[in-house]
Amino acid sequence: MLLHLSTWTEVEEYLQQSQGIILPIGSTEQHSPIGLIGTDAICAEAISKGVGEAKQALVGPTINVGMALHHLEFPGSMSLKPSTMILVLRDYISSLAKAGFRRFFFINGHGGNVATMKAAFSETYDHLATLGITDVRCAVCNWYMGREVYQLAKKLYGDKEGSHATPSEVALTWYVYPEAVKQGELGEPGRGHRIYSAVDFRQNYPDGRMGSDPSLATVEHGQRFYETAVKEISQDYQRFIDGK
Amino acid sequence: MLLHLSTWTEVEEYLQQSQGIILPIGSTEQHSPIGLIGTDAICAEAISKGVGEAKQALVGPTINVGMALHHLEFPGSMSLKPSTMILVLRDYISSLAKAGFRRFFFINGHGGNVATMKAAFSETYDHLATLGITDVRCAVCNWYMGREVYQLAKKLYGDKEGSHATPSEVALTWYVYPEAVKQGELGEPGRGHRIYSAVDFRQNYPDGRMGSDPSLATVEHGQRFYETAVKEISQDYQRFIDGK
Amino acid sequence: MLLHLSTWTEVEEYLQQSQGIILPIGSTEQHSPIGLIGTDAICAEAISKGVGEAKQALVGPTINVGMALHHLEFPGSMSLKPSTMILVLRDYISSLAKAGFRRFFFINGHGGNVATMKAAFSETYDHLATLGITDVRCAVCNWYMGREVYQLAKKLYGDKEGSHATPSEVALTWYVYPEAVKQGELGEPGRGHRIYSAVDFRQNYPDGRMGSDPSLATVEHGQRFYETAVKEISQDYQRFIDGK
Amino acid sequence: MLLHLSTWTEVEEYLQQSQGIILPIGSTEQHSPIGLIGTDAICAEAISKGVGEAKQALVGPTINVGMALHHLEFPGSMSLKPSTMILVLRDYISSLAKAGFRRFFFINGHGGNVATMKAAFSETYDHLATLGITDVRCAVCNWYMGREVYQLAKKLYGDKEGSHATPSEVALTWYVYPEAVKQGELGEPGRGHRIYSAVDFRQNYPDGRMGSDPSLATVEHGQRFYETAVKEISQDYQRFIDGK
Amino acid sequence: MLLHLSTWTEVEEYLQQSQGIILPIGSTEQHSPIGLIGTDAICAEAISKGVGEAKQALVGPTINVGMALHHLEFPGSMSLKPSTMILVLRDYISSLAKAGFRRFFFINGHGGNVATMKAAFSETYDHLATLGITDVRCAVCNWYMGREVYQLAKKLYGDKEGSHATPSEVALTWYVYPEAVKQGELGEPGRGHRIYSAVDFRQNYPDGRMGSDPSLATVEHGQRFYETAVKEISQDYQRFIDGK
Amino acid sequence: MLLHLSTWTEVEEYLQQSQGIILPIGSTEQHSPIGLIGTDAICAEAISKGVGEAKQALVGPTINVGMALHHLEFPGSMSLKPSTMILVLRDYISSLAKAGFRRFFFINGHGGNVATMKAAFSETYDHLATLGITDVRCAVCNWYMGREVYQLAKKLYGDKEGSHATPSEVALTWYVYPEAVKQGELGEPGRGHRIYSAVDFRQNYPDGRMGSDPSLATVEHGQRFYETAVKEISQDYQRFIDGK
Repeated sequence: MLLHLSTWTEVEEYLQQSQGIILPIGSTEQHSPIGLIGTDAICAEAISKGVGEAKQALVGPTINVGMALHHLEFPGSMSLKPSTMILVLRDYISSLAKAGFRRFFFINGHGGNVATMKAAFSETYDHLATLGITDVRCAVCNWYMGREVYQLAKKLYGDKEGSHATPSEVALTWYVYPEAVKQGELGEPGRGHRIYSAVDFRQNYPDGRMGSDPSLATVEHGQRFYETAVKEISQDYQRFIDGK
Repeated sequence: MLLHLSTWTEVEEYLQQSQGIILPIGSTEQHSPIGLIGTDAICAEAISKGVGEAKQALVGPTINVGMALHHLEFPGSMSLKPSTMILVLRDYISSLAKAGFRRFFFINGHGGNVATMKAAFSETYDHLATLGITDVRCAVCNWYMGREVYQLAKKLYGDKEGSHATPSEVALTWYVYPEAVKQGELGEPGRGHRIYSAVDFRQNYPDGRMGSDPSLATVEHGQRFYETAVKEISQDYQRFIDGK
Repeated sequence: MLLHLSTWTEVEEYLQQSQGIILPIGSTEQHSPIGLIGTDAICAEAISKGVGEAKQALVGPTINVGMALHHLEFPGSMSLKPSTMILVLRDYISSLAKAGFRRFFFINGHGGNVATMKAAFSETYDHLATLGITDVRCAVCNWYMGREVYQLAKKLYGDKEGSHATPSEVALTWYVYPEAVKQGELGEPGRGHRIYSAVDFRQNYPDGRMGSDPSLATVEHGQRFYETAVKEISQDYQRFIDGK
Repeated sequence: MLLHLSTWTEVEEYLQQSQGIILPIGSTEQHSPIGLIGTDAICAEAISKGVGEAKQALVGPTINVGMALHHLEFPGSMSLKPSTMILVLRDYISSLAKAGFRRFFFINGHGGNVATMKAAFSETYDHLATLGITDVRCAVCNWYMGREVYQLAKKLYGDKEGSHATPSEVALTWYVYPEAVKQGELGEPGRGHRIYSAVDFRQNYPDGRMGSDPSLATVEHGQRFYETAVKEISQDYQRFIDGK
Repeated sequence: MLLHLSTWTEVEEYLQQSQGIILPIGSTEQHSPIGLIGTDAICAEAISKGVGEAKQALVGPTINVGMALHHLEFPGSMSLKPSTMILVLRDYISSLAKAGFRRFFFINGHGGNVATMKAAFSETYDHLATLGITDVRCAVCNWYMGREVYQLAKKLYGDKEGSHATPSEVALTWYVYPEAVKQGELGEPGRGHRIYSAVDFRQNYPDGRMGSDPSLATVEHGQRFYETAVKEISQDYQRFIDGK
Repeated sequence: MLLHLSTWTEVEEYLQQSQGIILPIGSTEQHSPIGLIGTDAICAEAISKGVGEAKQALVGPTINVGMALHHLEFPGSMSLKPSTMILVLRDYISSLAKAGFRRFFFINGHGGNVATMKAAFSETYDHLATLGITDVRCAVCNWYMGREVYQLAKKLYGDKEGSHATPSEVALTWYVYPEAVKQGELGEPGRGHRIYSAVDFRQNYPDGRMGSDPSLATVEHGQRFYETAVKEISQDYQRFIDGK
């Protein structure tokens, strides 16, 4: 059940059954010369829809732009400042909490979002308490870190999975948008540097990849990642709703 | 050309041709018991894609959640505070301006966004000036206010077009998502009240409609609105890029 | 009844009769080489006092500095950032709402304020709701857009009214401050450009005028604008208080 | 020379002679049952005009609403939060600094403003430094604390001067607005309590006075305070401009 | 009783006896070539501990970094912006008020903190009121301004006490950290300039001293200042708790 | 070398050798009925001093209060909101970066700080870039997560180490402050719940412990943790400075 394709009366009914909602969150940032700028948002959205169907859970609007300040030296990358993103998440959660939602399950496609999301959850619990709401719970689920997804990536790509513009996420976007498969020669990626400023990042990772070889991705791999992630995360969602 | 389906190298090439970008902006808010909660975002996104194709223009990520505080008494509605939305737009525009974009054309689906967007543009010009960028231009284009779209709505629906959850916008969403067509009995809508707080809004507009009868919408109407809007706004975009 | 010339006990009594208050809001910005920098505030304040007398309504302090970032390339212009102005209006309204005021009627002299004011009203309704106040209503009345004022300007100046540093507003300031009438040769004004950044504005409107010829203004015209506006807006105020 | 009665070209000329400006700052807050709510703004504005005339200095718009949170339990009182006021002062000073002003002399009518003003000056120096401006200087001059004004108050009222709603400031407002002289029986004022929250303030100072007897004020006293203050502060302004 | 060396159960018991807490606040900023960068924090902390012992009062964590923007041209100086410091103090006080603390006694070592602290107290009272807490009281006690401390400094150093990097505060730090006594030739200090921006400050006070000769300090003096301050401020604390 | 015991001239010299600085960051929050409220700050500060001595590195002021909103239902706990903490870290780092520091090594004692710290680093890199500084690097080192420290804790306490109010951190505080060793009967701790709001936390962890038995701590253990951590983290610091 997709929030944007529902009516308010349908949401009112849904709330009789469940106070849970899935929120996809990604990023709009470079993913190497062959990975899509929307990779993180595409993955999060596709998996969220799959989990929503599997669990009859409501899926909210995708947060397309996340915290990607360190990618801003690459054209097409966009980012919220962390302080902005905290306010955005506070506003999203507060809007929905006002209507009765209590369990917010964020399916996340971008590692760079996690710290700010956790900060935002703390800020939001405190904010909601001033409105008399103390029983909201938020969780972040990074689809690429599920045990089975992780093992599949290791099996398919070994250490060419890398940590940004990975073949696993690129494969998944190609499965969702086969018309957007890109080709291209890629040299050796940057590897092993910590992430600091945007200037620093581009110096260390000149084409945007972090140790990965996204050219190994295939549409068929993408389907396997999709199915594995949906299955795995559907269980995570259930445990979250059950309070376990 | 969709930003999320492009690579950073493709964007780098695009910037050689154009410094313009289209940004769809909508809202996630009640649209009566038969209109979709995502109506404003769906319309803005669909038309943006159409204009992007027509003009070979880059289309950025859709801003799904806008300024809809006055709808928050209806479940499923979401909103940014205006102060948050100003920061979000500042961050979006600044990210892209850093890479060389200079013309930001927002195709908007929600009247409630306009004031805050204009405030945000002013705030952003001032912010960019502190970074040495003084030649950015932003424009908002409300798809439903184009002359031909407006006339079509008047012709089809007369005064049953109303001003929220209108048959024209609902028709357009049904054209885009025919699987999401809803039916339902609707009584007389609220009519003629100004908009103040969320509580006040719901008292005056108990089912969310403002003078409209969205049950008049059809998929076929939606197609006509889509085509009319894309044609009309493509010209607007060109004039904006040409500085006229 | 002017707030600044009243005592708190008089305000306490007033609140027994009415929960309405008029707040003049203007701007401090260039108005061409012969129009006063205080034009927008002077007009808003004078008309507010007139309406206050006509309707026995309380008139609060004039907001002298508004949102005029696009004028800052002209010396003497001042501006709040939109984000600041939202906080200012929130603080003004909240202070008075705490004491029992519920109807805030802003008489506005500057088009550039409107977007930010509307954003501020939304932000404030939401803020007040967290304090348990959901019945506050705010309205903005642009004195220069009243039907009769508008027709008078058209009759007197035709298309030389323009849209900034207009003869109508300059006439009104000269009526209020006849000692401040200025003379000066003015060439052809800039015309027809949209408003973006301050640098952009000054390039397009080199002496600050937007299509206007303020040298057509006279003190006698000013009196007519004053009287027309006060009469017209007094009715608007009454309708606002009556909830129509 | 009053900014609001000047044109931008006149300000441009003024800046050739001086980079100094006087900014009146007051408050809109209860001043006992017979003192005017606008007392602090009226005093600051009147004296600023006098000093401006005496020194040929430019006088900017009056900041009518200051930091008076502790008065908000009395109807008609208004306040900015300190955090808002810091932004307001930053915006005022930055706007004018951009045009070339470098010496900001605030004539202040309200003790409650001082701490926040000083915080704002520090915040603003730091902000301006990021724009490359490091030579701005701001000063606050409390008109009621000048040596001669203070002695006059002591001579006329002894310990009935008190520290809020004082006869000296009330006298000055009556001199400026003789039509607004109020009468009324006043009992013993509260006395000797520190200032904390608004609730606390009203408990300790039930009619708003702090140890004062404003009924001793006369219009003639007001004139003496006015003349004494203008003379004294004109010298202060000169010293400030001279960098002494 | 030191908060950081207590357990939450001990604090719970303490709150049965007292709702008062002492909070030391200093600064991390240059104190001339022989005074310690931590001078203000060291003094505030040492005296707070002494007063806490004398009065059986709880002493909270030391705020080491204060408002010292004007010192930032000297390496090793650190500062919060005033707007940040307001939030920090709001968060500190709110955290403790939630648990039941009602009397906050700040022992302060840095004159530059005072304005922002007072602004923060006002902001916080207003914030707490929105949470239903209206009886919190905050006070700032500048240890160096107590009557006996002041007289001792005058007696020992006359006009060589100066107003920054004073021998009295330096003596106190040496008493606390005798291992950190520094030697050094000092010329004539800057003297008599007001404080504006950091650049301005360093120009007027090239080695950081404001009219002082810290080389007059001795460890034995430090002990006398410590004992005098603890005795004097213990009485201040008691009066504050007693509401006098 | 401790910043607070240094002079600005000594810091100026230090900067000739190194642009690195160690910043201890802890928290002020409950650590069960026998662990000290200052535990996290005490540990971070003690280890920082040790590493500073070992590496001749400058150690800045301890951040005593961190992000501990979820502990606020226990008296004596204090917290910054995440949004406040981001500003604090931005101000700290910016102050020091202005003077030439480029490598900021935070030794952290509290897991709850990490997300907000990472968000703050991103925010700060972006902020510094607007000031033209793009080569600052920040790192967080959680002392309790070093490999050797972790193994020691496992060896000494097995699964009674738990994850809050752990015997390892308590032991370290007792080594630093042997006079503050506390005794007390502790029952079974809460265990296995995720962390959400403060109310939720206290319900799940009624005495504040998360699966730990701090009564196993001894002063002698504390010494071993101290020495192990200092040794291990000294190497981490060196690698960070060396850019590895």
